[in-house]
Amino acid sequence: MEHLKRLFDIDPWKLTTTTLHKDDFRLQESLTSIGNGYMGMRGNFEESYSGDHHQGTYLAGVWYPDKTRVGWWKNGYPEYFGKVINAMNFIAMDIYVNDTKIDLATQPIEDFYQELNMQDGILSRQFKITVDGLTINCRFSRFLSITTKELAVIQFKAEVLAGEGTVKVVSRLDNNVQNEDSNYDDRFWETTDAVDNDTALFVTARTIPNNFGIEQFTVTGLMENQTANDVVRSSEKSSLATAETLVFTVKQGDTIAVDKKVILVTSRDVAANEQLATAQALMDETNQQSIAELTQAHQQAWAQRWALADVVIEGDHEAQQGIRFNLFQLFSTYYGEDERLNIGPKGFTGEKYGGATYWDTEAYAVPLYLALTDSEVTKNLLKYRHNQLPQAQHNARQQGLAGALYPMVTFTGVECHNEWEITFEEIHRNGAIAYAIYNYTNYTGDTSYIKNEGLEVLVEIARFWADRVHYSKRNDRYMIHGVTGPNEYENNINNNWYTNYIATWVLKYTLENYRAFQSEATVTLEAAELTKWEDIIAKMYFPVDNELGIFVQHDTFLDKELLPTTALSASDVPLNQNWSWDRILRSCFIKQADVLQGIYFFGDQFTTEEKQRNFDFYEPMTVHESSLSPSIHAVLAAELGMEEKAVEMYQRTARLDLDNYNNDTEDGLHITSMTGSWLAIVQGFAQMKTFDEQLSFAPFLPKSWDKYAFHINYRNRQLHINIDKEWVTITLKSGDALALTIYGEEHELTDTVQIALKK
Amino acid sequence: MEHLKRLFDIDPWKLTTTTLHKDDFRLQESLTSIGNGYMGMRGNFEESYSGDHHQGTYLAGVWYPDKTRVGWWKNGYPEYFGKVINAMNFIAMDIYVNDTKIDLATQPIEDFYQELNMQDGILSRQFKITVDGLTINCRFSRFLSITTKELAVIQFKAEVLAGEGTVKVVSRLDNNVQNEDSNYDDRFWETTDAVDNDTALFVTARTIPNNFGIEQFTVTGLMENQTANDVVRSSEKSSLATAETLVFTVKQGDTIAVDKKVILVTSRDVAANEQLATAQALMDETNQQSIAELTQAHQQAWAQRWALADVVIEGDHEAQQGIRFNLFQLFSTYYGEDERLNIGPKGFTGEKYGGATYWDTEAYAVPLYLALTDSEVTKNLLKYRHNQLPQAQHNARQQGLAGALYPMVTFTGVECHNEWEITFEEIHRNGAIAYAIYNYTNYTGDTSYIKNEGLEVLVEIARFWADRVHYSKRNDRYMIHGVTGPNEYENNINNNWYTNYIATWVLKYTLENYRAFQSEATVTLEAAELTKWEDIIAKMYFPVDNELGIFVQHDTFLDKELLPTTALSASDVPLNQNWSWDRILRSCFIKQADVLQGIYFFGDQFTTEEKQRNFDFYEPMTVHESSLSPSIHAVLAAELGMEEKAVEMYQRTARLDLDNYNNDTEDGLHITSMTGSWLAIVQGFAQMKTFDEQLSFAPFLPKSWDKYAFHINYRNRQLHINIDKEWVTITLKSGDALALTIYGEEHELTDTVQIALKK
Repeated sequence: MEHLKRLFDIDPWKLTTTTLHKDDFRLQESLTSIGNGYMGMRGNFEESYSGDHHQGTYLAGVWYPDKTRVGWWKNGYPEYFGKVINAMNFIAMDIYVNDTKIDLATQPIEDFYQELNMQDGILSRQFKITVDGLTINCRFSRFLSITTKELAVIQFKAEVLAGEGTVKVVSRLDNNVQNEDSNYDDRFWETTDAVDNDTALFVTARTIPNNFGIEQFTVTGLMENQTANDVVRSSEKSSLATAETLVFTVKQGDTIAVDKKVILVTSRDVAANEQLATAQALMDETNQQSIAELTQAHQQAWAQRWALADVVIEGDHEAQQGIRFNLFQLFSTYYGEDERLNIGPKGFTGEKYGGATYWDTEAYAVPLYLALTDSEVTKNLLKYRHNQLPQAQHNARQQGLAGALYPMVTFTGVECHNEWEITFEEIHRNGAIAYAIYNYTNYTGDTSYIKNEGLEVLVEIARFWADRVHYSKRNDRYMIHGVTGPNEYENNINNNWYTNYIATWVLKYTLENYRAFQSEATVTLEAAELTKWEDIIAKMYFPVDNELGIFVQHDTFLDKELLPTTALSASDVPLNQNWSWDRILRSCFIKQADVLQGIYFFGDQFTTEEKQRNFDFYEPMTVHESSLSPSIHAVLAAELGMEEKAVEMYQRTARLDLDNYNNDTEDGLHITSMTGSWLAIVQGFAQMKTFDEQLSFAPFLPKSWDKYAFHINYRNRQLHINIDKEWVTITLKSGDALALTIYGEEHELTDTVQIALKK
Repeated sequence: MEHLKRLFDIDPWKLTTTTLHKDDFRLQESLTSIGNGYMGMRGNFEESYSGDHHQGTYLAGVWYPDKTRVGWWKNGYPEYFGKVINAMNFIAMDIYVNDTKIDLATQPIEDFYQELNMQDGILSRQFKITVDGLTINCRFSRFLSITTKELAVIQFKAEVLAGEGTVKVVSRLDNNVQNEDSNYDDRFWETTDAVDNDTALFVTARTIPNNFGIEQFTVTGLMENQTANDVVRSSEKSSLATAETLVFTVKQGDTIAVDKKVILVTSRDVAANEQLATAQALMDETNQQSIAELTQAHQQAWAQRWALADVVIEGDHEAQQGIRFNLFQLFSTYYGEDERLNIGPKGFTGEKYGGATYWDTEAYAVPLYLALTDSEVTKNLLKYRHNQLPQAQHNARQQGLAGALYPMVTFTGVECHNEWEITFEEIHRNGAIAYAIYNYTNYTGDTSYIKNEGLEVLVEIARFWADRVHYSKRNDRYMIHGVTGPNEYENNINNNWYTNYIATWVLKYTLENYRAFQSEATVTLEAAELTKWEDIIAKMYFPVDNELGIFVQHDTFLDKELLPTTALSASDVPLNQNWSWDRILRSCFIKQADVLQGIYFFGDQFTTEEKQRNFDFYEPMTVHESSLSPSIHAVLAAELGMEEKAVEMYQRTARLDLDNYNNDTEDGLHITSMTGSWLAIVQGFAQMKTFDEQLSFAPFLPKSWDKYAFHINYRNRQLHINIDKEWVTITLKSGDALALTIYGEEHELTDTVQIALKK
């Protein structure tokens, strides 16, 4: 597929451009998003911009239950749709040159330059503008501190190149924001009288009341606008906004600068009536350090992250930029500091999809965080689900079923999405929750979670499956009807091979662990329950086609008109933007091949021939319109020695957003699928596997690359893996010696193992 | 099933009650709805009522495109959801007794009585109330004229039983109304400056602008409040309402009366700037007659309708009341005067379901209107579809398909509903449109419609089907995947027997008629097209089970857990109010048995054994939660000699609303399914059939009945059919002699045929 749109230059550590892409401004904003796990925002300009754009600042865990209903609400539907909401615009700094408001959408500028530095998360921009004979060079720079999560620093600097007059900066904290998808211009913020203070530049806002018993969030922003220049200040407060105006009188050769510091606290951490005091204390504390020192601390923290996680690619700058962009955005979204949070599909870069927690976390993010961060980060992701077990039980009851059903989309654990074919039917997600427990335990060797919390989760998920299957008398088999698999281009299908497989696996794995940890477990199973589970395991129906030698996606898949994606024309794709839903559903084309997803998850349970036949059957029909799809194909293609296909799939996942493959990055980045490029390199190209607690590699080097290298954290060890044109070099950077397998041969890693690259 | 709720007494011609059912007030309002095909309203009280109720006045053809969107809009979805909107409340007459506003929700009353007279469509009510020593007996009465469609007459009368003081009547025309299901309190009416006049008591309102290019409707209401008593008058106008206040000074023994006449005109008939003049002219014209004369004319017109349509049942007053209620409400909704209108599922009795045209019209209403009204009425229903052929072509294009797809829900012919499993997939509706053409032609013998308009419709529907099927290579059969059949308790199924059957029938019927009328036809088919159609006809796949000897609802239906409805408990039903949607979908329980629907439509194409086996298989799994379901079962049960089942099904359809069987009549009456009780009697108990242009009967008399009698209009003849305990008596009331079949034997009907009832 051609590159649809590439706005930024190729650079190993940066996104840079000298073009203001007015026609693709939303895309430019998405790609320049920054975040610190606590808050984040799209690459909106500090000063007002009147052109088409998408203003978006988001606070982790701050959301709203959307009351919009449509006529065909079904029984059992959630009462509300949980929405990520746009929060206070706190970067705002309107600039007036000789009383003309600067607006890059309408005014001519020169020397535009924008840069997102992925090494330290600093977004900067400059341009030259002339108004009434006064020419200034403006520079903005901002970061969200990863050392003090409540802190944002926005710096403005202007050099006067010619002329004289005034430069006015209006620095704002503004809650007059709304969502892109608001119906009827619905707003979410109201004023509050929680605190009052005449001197501090702050604003406190609260989400408006709702009828669903969802907590109202209160947020306080406090700012200081520091400058070393002579300035005339004034300020103004309204119910939802606070502004400070700074007027500078300037002439050629002058340089003025405003350092805006913002502290943002929310009622998730601080009670409403204490927020101003807390914010003030944090402000005072950070004022002990200069802006330069604060910046340096932030940069060092990013350097530490990269030291554990960086992937180096030589010989392919596009690929290098892609993988770093993905890791940068992932860590900007989530770095495991808060077990009440999870990884939203758009992170802090957009509003689409509502909700903040999807199965993506367990299926795609867990393996990456396991390898690149401390195991506590992943454990927090697992605890998040354990904490929400009561809500998952509630979800199952809503469907009249036993056990626990983890939600498709949620903030609190209660399902908050309203599409029956997803909410009610895309229940395979429940399997991924269990799989993450297996993944964590198998990867880390730490059984404490499964014993203390995991088994409770597993048993309740198993109970759900045992109730959700039905017995088909005429087949003498258990079946699962009415599901949507990971391939969301088919809905309400029967006996989705993937769902049936993972459901059966959950029952097996739960039984196994229940028996292993029974004496220590806090759950007890009845004998009848065990017998029922065993019966289901023995008699589960799996659709297969013996002639083709494949697992069949679902009962009637092979009755379709079976065509390869090469039969599609350019005007057909992406299908979801060109075909009506019914046509997509009855076509053979696959958004994400779920049989292959199952083979990927359970890679030790299938022969190479089985993998090959299924890959050869499903891959040609897969359109990869799920951002989660290509990485899995990359991993399998690599295992099957199909290097070209693996590299093609890598490229698609690595630069999905940078090259706007799916033509929807303007809505925000595909955060959760950003793990895909890492999976493609590490589990694909390097064939790292950990089945049965055995670490193994079987690397190849893409033809156009000179080398690639990555780190992993494995069972309290830091390993560095380097693959160049000749050698596979694995170095133990810290921790005890380790037995590992390379190309099927066992090696003892004490310091470095180097063996020849297989070609 | 028990009778869930019966608010009104049993009476052959009336709904009467002496109880104000405050706890079921919405149900009481639904059941006392009146309409005249042009406008109608729920049984709202004239005076203000502060208790829970549903204010609702509706104007035929006046609607609004709802802009509400939810997050998961799919490609190809209609832009808006078409909504029936609440229009001017023109019956309003607030009553003040000694300056206290009367409100039956809160004030004690005596001698409450409410009556809906189905013979003449007059709704009346009385009650006695005492305020500050003043006791009055109030009586309201209203009707919507069926001789002057724009005219409504509302009469108020008060007798002073004790005390003295004032009675104040505030008579209003009020556009401050909104829909029950409005999101964000959305309103639909705005003021207009189209006309101004200081003396007339009128108000003009226009639907607010929309972004969809849908016409804005303008509506003018003009009133006169006539009284013979001494009165002090004053009036008040606001932008959306007009009120006249009449104050009467009264004492014991006085009687006061106000006759409120309203003329209502809409921009569907009269341009906005001419509406007041037109309304005034109509008012003047009706003022040539007294209220008593206007009432009498209205009553005579109803008497004429009943003379053609009445069904008399002796020995079962509940059944008698049921059938008359259904016919009354049907004729109140539609009597064929306007070919731009159709029959909405709630008529003028509620807002639910949006839209005004469903396939219900063709499948269930056409047979009734064919028999009970002039054939022009049905022809108008058919022309409605022919007029909308371009829109139906548009709908097909939206799905990327050829031909024409008639909408599931519409006002204009463009699909205006947004549920993919309905809008995109419940395409069997396209078959019913064709079936109605067959039905009309076969029943009337009039081939003019099929030649002049029908064939164009048929060919385009056939083209849709020919494009919508796909060829399954491994089965060497054509299939139809991804549909929802009439049984809406399964979605997105493959090879729905009903859909496959009716699609194939359309191809056959269209070919047949194309060949018959080719020389006169305005459409031309290519040879390749004909060949393709023939191939599809020859190779269509139909799911059958040879062992069970049945047609299978769809591909995997028999894999379900198959249970009879007797396995359901009281807390399960109705399923749609107790089970989550996924559970309903994967259960075997059937909302409406579509295999039986097909067997009903094409009753001449199946053997009695086939009918029996399928009935015995599907009937026990059918929950009849579609109001369209029981009548079809009644017809088939009757044919199969299962009298008890036929009667049970009749009762369910005849008193569906009167006894609130589905527990949802509070939202409005099930107008389109009201034909069911008539179908059950005429096509069921009397076994009237018209296949192959041959009229036949094979009546039985339900055990508990003494007799039943009905009329039919057949090929320019009026027949009266009387079935009592001994005899079947068929009388030719007008028209030429006719050959007909009774119990399989041919008879020549010249005057009366009487033969013994078969027992």
